[in-house]
Amino acid sequence: MLNRVRSAVAHLVSSGGASPPRPKSPDLPSTTSAPPAAAPETPKSPPARPGSESGASAKTVETRASFSRPTFLQLSPGGLRRADDHAGRAVQSPPDRGRRLPWSTGYAEVINAGKSRHNEDQACCEVVYVEGRRSVTGDPREPSQSQGLCFYYWGLFDGHAGGGAAEMASRLLHRHIREQLRDLVEILQDPSPPPLCLPGTSGTPGCSDSTHLIGPQSCWSSQKEVTHESLVVGAIENAFQLMDEQMARERERRGHQVEGGCCALVVVYLLGKVYVANAGDSRAIIVRNGEIIPMSREFTPETERQRLQLLGFLKPELLGGEFTHLEFPRRVQPKELGQRMLYRDQNMTGWAYKKIELEDLRFPLVCGEGKKARVMATIGVTRGLGDHNLKVCSSTLPIKPFLSCFPEVRVYDLTQYEHCPDDVLVLGTDGLWDVTNDCEVAATVDRVLSAYEPNDPSRYTALAQALVLGARGTPRDRGWRLPNNKLGSGDDISVFVIPLGGPGSYS
Amino acid sequence: MLNRVRSAVAHLVSSGGASPPRPKSPDLPSTTSAPPAAAPETPKSPPARPGSESGASAKTVETRASFSRPTFLQLSPGGLRRADDHAGRAVQSPPDRGRRLPWSTGYAEVINAGKSRHNEDQACCEVVYVEGRRSVTGDPREPSQSQGLCFYYWGLFDGHAGGGAAEMASRLLHRHIREQLRDLVEILQDPSPPPLCLPGTSGTPGCSDSTHLIGPQSCWSSQKEVTHESLVVGAIENAFQLMDEQMARERERRGHQVEGGCCALVVVYLLGKVYVANAGDSRAIIVRNGEIIPMSREFTPETERQRLQLLGFLKPELLGGEFTHLEFPRRVQPKELGQRMLYRDQNMTGWAYKKIELEDLRFPLVCGEGKKARVMATIGVTRGLGDHNLKVCSSTLPIKPFLSCFPEVRVYDLTQYEHCPDDVLVLGTDGLWDVTNDCEVAATVDRVLSAYEPNDPSRYTALAQALVLGARGTPRDRGWRLPNNKLGSGDDISVFVIPLGGPGSYS
Repeated sequence: MLNRVRSAVAHLVSSGGASPPRPKSPDLPSTTSAPPAAAPETPKSPPARPGSESGASAKTVETRASFSRPTFLQLSPGGLRRADDHAGRAVQSPPDRGRRLPWSTGYAEVINAGKSRHNEDQACCEVVYVEGRRSVTGDPREPSQSQGLCFYYWGLFDGHAGGGAAEMASRLLHRHIREQLRDLVEILQDPSPPPLCLPGTSGTPGCSDSTHLIGPQSCWSSQKEVTHESLVVGAIENAFQLMDEQMARERERRGHQVEGGCCALVVVYLLGKVYVANAGDSRAIIVRNGEIIPMSREFTPETERQRLQLLGFLKPELLGGEFTHLEFPRRVQPKELGQRMLYRDQNMTGWAYKKIELEDLRFPLVCGEGKKARVMATIGVTRGLGDHNLKVCSSTLPIKPFLSCFPEVRVYDLTQYEHCPDDVLVLGTDGLWDVTNDCEVAATVDRVLSAYEPNDPSRYTALAQALVLGARGTPRDRGWRLPNNKLGSGDDISVFVIPLGGPGSYS
Repeated sequence: MLNRVRSAVAHLVSSGGASPPRPKSPDLPSTTSAPPAAAPETPKSPPARPGSESGASAKTVETRASFSRPTFLQLSPGGLRRADDHAGRAVQSPPDRGRRLPWSTGYAEVINAGKSRHNEDQACCEVVYVEGRRSVTGDPREPSQSQGLCFYYWGLFDGHAGGGAAEMASRLLHRHIREQLRDLVEILQDPSPPPLCLPGTSGTPGCSDSTHLIGPQSCWSSQKEVTHESLVVGAIENAFQLMDEQMARERERRGHQVEGGCCALVVVYLLGKVYVANAGDSRAIIVRNGEIIPMSREFTPETERQRLQLLGFLKPELLGGEFTHLEFPRRVQPKELGQRMLYRDQNMTGWAYKKIELEDLRFPLVCGEGKKARVMATIGVTRGLGDHNLKVCSSTLPIKPFLSCFPEVRVYDLTQYEHCPDDVLVLGTDGLWDVTNDCEVAATVDRVLSAYEPNDPSRYTALAQALVLGARGTPRDRGWRLPNNKLGSGDDISVFVIPLGGPGSYS
């Protein structure tokens, strides 16, 4: 996330203090139940390792608190040093030897060109077993009678203002999803519609699901049908919120090592369906038979302008007298008082002229365009996890109320189409998408996969590497350059390539 | 708008009082400048005419205050009686004799089957001349140097809880649009980008448009480009808001004859582009070479659930302790306290279980499904004009804060495609769309237009009539029935058919 946060990086680097022990996700059960006869859960990310360089004490704190790379990269200390080299920018992938990622998923990453001390992207790929919490009959003493569930999980976390939030999310978000799904294990395996009401924790008997009408409210003549799919969506949404709340608590307790925030793009495969949840500016697309299917959209100050403005309008105290919720095409100057300038408010998509008044001279809540768009002149994404201590530059005004931790979840039914080995789901952080687009990625998918045998499981890693290399470019003319001589991405770049042609049959 | 408002109709009908003179849009200049050499403006809607029936005094008030039909129908007193007949439900169209509507637009309407005393739909079709307000040089004494502008205008207004708002909007909304466009007359005719800043009303000199940067805010390194198109969108958006504010003032001043509210769907054709603005549950589609292009979306408690819930969450005082902002799939019952029920909040698209607490027993802000969905158990649309006095059933809680007067505006560039005489823009109130869909309408377009010569200007009226008849059905089996024996629409039905094949050349 290049240049997306103006204040907090310096903030973090300059903060000193001791290095307390890493949090151990105190809000989640630390034991991971083993599945009865399913793929074992890939080990969680390793504890933070000290960096190889001995920097200033302030930097050491950041290093200790946040530097790690995904376990599945199986990096040796020497490999870790190479992965941390901003000059060489070697592309990292899981080794050919050893166990492959589930579904033969391809992965590649590269560190930024120097914009932050370490790679602030993190990744996670897991097979997660979900054991039912208890029987749905309502007796808490009675264990769940059904088999548990497995879900496959991929996550990309693009950190800003420090690597703590991304690292924490990569370790814990899938556990929150697992916890949310535990109540649903029996329900999701029962083909009948989900019960609208369940017994309480105290063992009160559950109610029947027949329609109960109270009074003459005609709008309640029927009950809503809730699908299994929407329960999984709700579980993922709530898991994001709980992850965010846990970050807030950890920050209170442990301070700067969970400093910062992160975009989160995760994929859950469960019972035939792929759920893509995005909060931030990473992106997921499916390339299927050459066709592009967008599986996410980016959340930025531009795409979420009206939501941000509405919040500023309804809760003006959040603007602290320093900002105006109105948008102007450029900063208003004091000498323009009384003149008429173009503006738009939270209700408008068009523009109109308004007479400039004193409070229009305040800094706009949303300003700038494209990669330079900012909320409160500070941050360039509007959804993600963490950022609980992020303040407006030179101010004590918190930004978090404007940032949402809720993802948009899109669902893709894998069973509705017969996928071939060249059909893939590509996830990338903005380091990829800043310098390329869906069509170019689809062309790379075609070019690289056609150079490999369809049953060669290394083809997806080769594709991920090609995508990362194509976005990074090569060092030339005092910078990283693409073949067309444009600047390559100087940001951290991380890419998953998930083949859709045989889910479950690879692992 | 059948059965969409539960309280206010009875409210209105039971209110008595004298019948004050009709408002004469005191907030707008009453003179309409004649265009230099353009099509004359169609006369505005006539003053309300007394109904033919002498009902109870309370009903007479409603009759006098709100009953009128569009002028372009040129109804005689006898014709007006026939148009007001809920049993016969004769389809009304402008007469074949006499002047056609601009572009040979087709129109047809029919009254409801008895759900309200009169037809609560209203319609307007105008050619509006816009004279520039003053020279853009900034000297208010200097008249505008440019030619004025003409726009073509079509509007459908679907009233609820009385006909006053729809009738007022049909008379005045295009004037508000004209007023908003007056500042833009020169700017829209100048191919260079619109100035970001204009001189003030006091004649202060305007500023240049070069970038003015203040301080080191990197997000302001460039100014936004604002298009001519987005100025027209902004003008329409603000016109809707001003119309709504005028209704609030008129209601304060004149009481019940501007009672009620209305959905508004309007089309503005200006300088080659068609702007379709929708606030409510009417719908516009283009049928072009058999292809359907949606030009609006409906705003209902279901489609706007998250906006409504967010407002209730951020401003709980608007819920008055009577409602909860959470949604449940059915009403929660007191005996379910402590159990867990499916719910979703303002951030969720999926569902999850929550333990039922005391405040979950409150009535949900949004409830019901489809045509039975309601905000605060009262109203089934969430955007429109008016409704300033609408209260929750048996309560003093106002509903208006949840209703938005802002339209969504979609733009269609007529110059980007060579249209044939069979390409049309169809506007219909929900009376049409409740019993038919886009595909059936497209099939009717094809069937009816192919039965007429391409240059027969009456074909569009014939098509509008066919659409209205097809939605109304015929009286049979104690109701209005469609050929498939399903119930026809018992609501008011109004349809415009606007040919796209030769804009400007017909009038």
